[in-house]
Amino acid sequence: MADTSPAMGVKSKTRLEAFSDGVFAIAITLLVIEIAVPQHAGSHLLSALLDQRPVYLSYFIAFMSIGIVWIEHSALTEALERVDAGFLRLNLLLLLLVAFLPYPTRVMQEYLSLLDSERGGEHAAVAFFGLVLFLMSLMLIVLGRYAEREGLFGSDAAEERQEERRVTYQLAPSLIFYAVATVCGVIQPYVGLVLYVFIGVYLLLPVRTIRRWLRRRG
Amino acid sequence: MADTSPAMGVKSKTRLEAFSDGVFAIAITLLVIEIAVPQHAGSHLLSALLDQRPVYLSYFIAFMSIGIVWIEHSALTEALERVDAGFLRLNLLLLLLVAFLPYPTRVMQEYLSLLDSERGGEHAAVAFFGLVLFLMSLMLIVLGRYAEREGLFGSDAAEERQEERRVTYQLAPSLIFYAVATVCGVIQPYVGLVLYVFIGVYLLLPVRTIRRWLRRRG
Amino acid sequence: MADTSPAMGVKSKTRLEAFSDGVFAIAITLLVIEIAVPQHAGSHLLSALLDQRPVYLSYFIAFMSIGIVWIEHSALTEALERVDAGFLRLNLLLLLLVAFLPYPTRVMQEYLSLLDSERGGEHAAVAFFGLVLFLMSLMLIVLGRYAEREGLFGSDAAEERQEERRVTYQLAPSLIFYAVATVCGVIQPYVGLVLYVFIGVYLLLPVRTIRRWLRRRG
Amino acid sequence: MADTSPAMGVKSKTRLEAFSDGVFAIAITLLVIEIAVPQHAGSHLLSALLDQRPVYLSYFIAFMSIGIVWIEHSALTEALERVDAGFLRLNLLLLLLVAFLPYPTRVMQEYLSLLDSERGGEHAAVAFFGLVLFLMSLMLIVLGRYAEREGLFGSDAAEERQEERRVTYQLAPSLIFYAVATVCGVIQPYVGLVLYVFIGVYLLLPVRTIRRWLRRRG
Repeated sequence: MADTSPAMGVKSKTRLEAFSDGVFAIAITLLVIEIAVPQHAGSHLLSALLDQRPVYLSYFIAFMSIGIVWIEHSALTEALERVDAGFLRLNLLLLLLVAFLPYPTRVMQEYLSLLDSERGGEHAAVAFFGLVLFLMSLMLIVLGRYAEREGLFGSDAAEERQEERRVTYQLAPSLIFYAVATVCGVIQPYVGLVLYVFIGVYLLLPVRTIRRWLRRRG
Repeated sequence: MADTSPAMGVKSKTRLEAFSDGVFAIAITLLVIEIAVPQHAGSHLLSALLDQRPVYLSYFIAFMSIGIVWIEHSALTEALERVDAGFLRLNLLLLLLVAFLPYPTRVMQEYLSLLDSERGGEHAAVAFFGLVLFLMSLMLIVLGRYAEREGLFGSDAAEERQEERRVTYQLAPSLIFYAVATVCGVIQPYVGLVLYVFIGVYLLLPVRTIRRWLRRRG
Repeated sequence: MADTSPAMGVKSKTRLEAFSDGVFAIAITLLVIEIAVPQHAGSHLLSALLDQRPVYLSYFIAFMSIGIVWIEHSALTEALERVDAGFLRLNLLLLLLVAFLPYPTRVMQEYLSLLDSERGGEHAAVAFFGLVLFLMSLMLIVLGRYAEREGLFGSDAAEERQEERRVTYQLAPSLIFYAVATVCGVIQPYVGLVLYVFIGVYLLLPVRTIRRWLRRRG
Repeated sequence: MADTSPAMGVKSKTRLEAFSDGVFAIAITLLVIEIAVPQHAGSHLLSALLDQRPVYLSYFIAFMSIGIVWIEHSALTEALERVDAGFLRLNLLLLLLVAFLPYPTRVMQEYLSLLDSERGGEHAAVAFFGLVLFLMSLMLIVLGRYAEREGLFGSDAAEERQEERRVTYQLAPSLIFYAVATVCGVIQPYVGLVLYVFIGVYLLLPVRTIRRWLRRRG
């Protein structure tokens, strides 16, 4: 009996997009709150700021990861004609992960920037972060598959369904990548980090645009 | 004399939805800020992270509670044709509760994750949280009733009014449930917690969609 | 030379509304962050939570003040046909005050909830809060006047201009009220507080709706 | 292969605007969180609040800088007819800088408000802040140039392209200004601060509107 009517009553997907955009935008902007200002650095502030490189790196990785999931999410929901009760709830689970990411980011920032003597938790920190990224990617694929099975794509969806499939195919390797990076993080944290940066930059590069530029110039 | 004109001047409900979506999205995303990174865990970080289970549970319950109220709120405002001065103000009271929820969540997180020796406040913490959930559900019902009495549903509202009534009927049991869970929290905190999780999962399950799937397969 | 083109290029007011709604929604939701969880209260948590009454009161006043300014702002921008460079910038000054309000709220919360022995700053705290409320109301009136002088209201603006004037007239007393409350706060903090609550409740009451209900029933 | 389809699938620019507005609104509103309430000031609270002038000044500068970049960003995206994969990603880099600004603001606030005896980091703090402002302005120009080269402006873009060029020309001096202010900050922090205020006020003044007023009156 539970949610039969109210969610089905959400005929349009506008509110879903607005709410999701809000959560994405807030999660991505909250990442900066956790960066701690160096205390009592005095005239050594410059070098104290430079010493925070692991913190900036974590910020960059987390920002880009959320940014990319947002781009994929936009592409997916844009292809939809409507949403249903199940999609709303699965979307909520994706947002739960997105909104949670600032926490593993903070854990990673703190445990990567510790002094050598206090070290020890980097493996868990990097793997924890990777796990959440992996679940985010997975949830996005689940959302896409659900939409396809429930026929949420429009009537002229032949094209859109293909579109969606391409999104899925494109995300599949990043899913594997995140799994690999997480496992690497457990063994060798800095290898995991490098892989996160690599995935971020790879997904971020507008390959088609670059190809067009090259063609035009070459 | 006070608010006669300005609020009535808000002919459309677009701004109300945008503002409400913003508050919901921010409140739901702020929940993560309060989770404290384990300090000086060193190589025991993994077990320190696992020890935070009550914190993750509180996060999950609070996230799902706000998420569900957002879904119900979407369904309600979507069915409206217009809003009036009274609706705007009652909506503000609902948002006051939504925006306040991160505080009882934090209280619950802190008092559930204390060491045994420091224990003692769980009863008050769980009941405080349940009270705010109860008031949120109540306020949503008040909003729906107000909209019905003031004729804010559209002209083809026969259907929508029924819709709204179904929302009310559906919320009524959750209202009772929250009251029960709050009272249980006073007596036995962990029973209260289990009930919150149960309500969250129950309201979250897209029953109609599941039934459709089952029918299709069976 | 400075802003000649870009701001004038903003032909629609949609972005202005979206951005303003965002700032209002965030400022109003951030208010809760500052409420500190009682530490080491153990089984006295309930009474510790009840002792936070001044904190809840400050939260309520600040929430309602921002909520009301948002309602007035909605009514004003809805009546506009277009915005210009000057309006965008004046609006930015209003948002600066709205986004700043959580700070005086925090100051007030901390200095009102101190133990008697540490007391002393309540006068400054309450007056500081009132000053920002006063400037917010003032800025809203400035925005309305600017819009009227620059002809930003629509062509069928006879009605809307009157609307705007009514908003101004309605705000004028609250401006005087805030000034009075601020001065009272300097002399007797709790009188100031009571006045803030009074203004909030007064502006919040949907007088016209109440009158309609009374008429219908009486 | 990477992002070929999903981003290109974003035919409309509505989501981009909504997401960007969200990030701008949150970053600008988060600035206030970092201002610390004076502790144990007792009856000296008023003078303690007045002593925070450098903090308020930093808040003002940071708020106005983000506000102006938002206005420029609005003007740019409004002139666009569509966005492509590359634009989405470059926009993400701009947002990364916008969302990062609260951190250098906090650094500046802390190192400018230190007691004389602890001084020493103001040069680095002011230059760090200026560097991020410089990169923000630069990124905005890159976005504009990219949009022009890729033909993202509409078909009746003769006018809009000119518009965009004017934005670029207008930003160019502020870019030089920010570079100069940053260098000055390294040598003499307070000169850098004064320059930031000057740029903010200069870009904020609605010159065309002022000229129109003067013409009308003179």
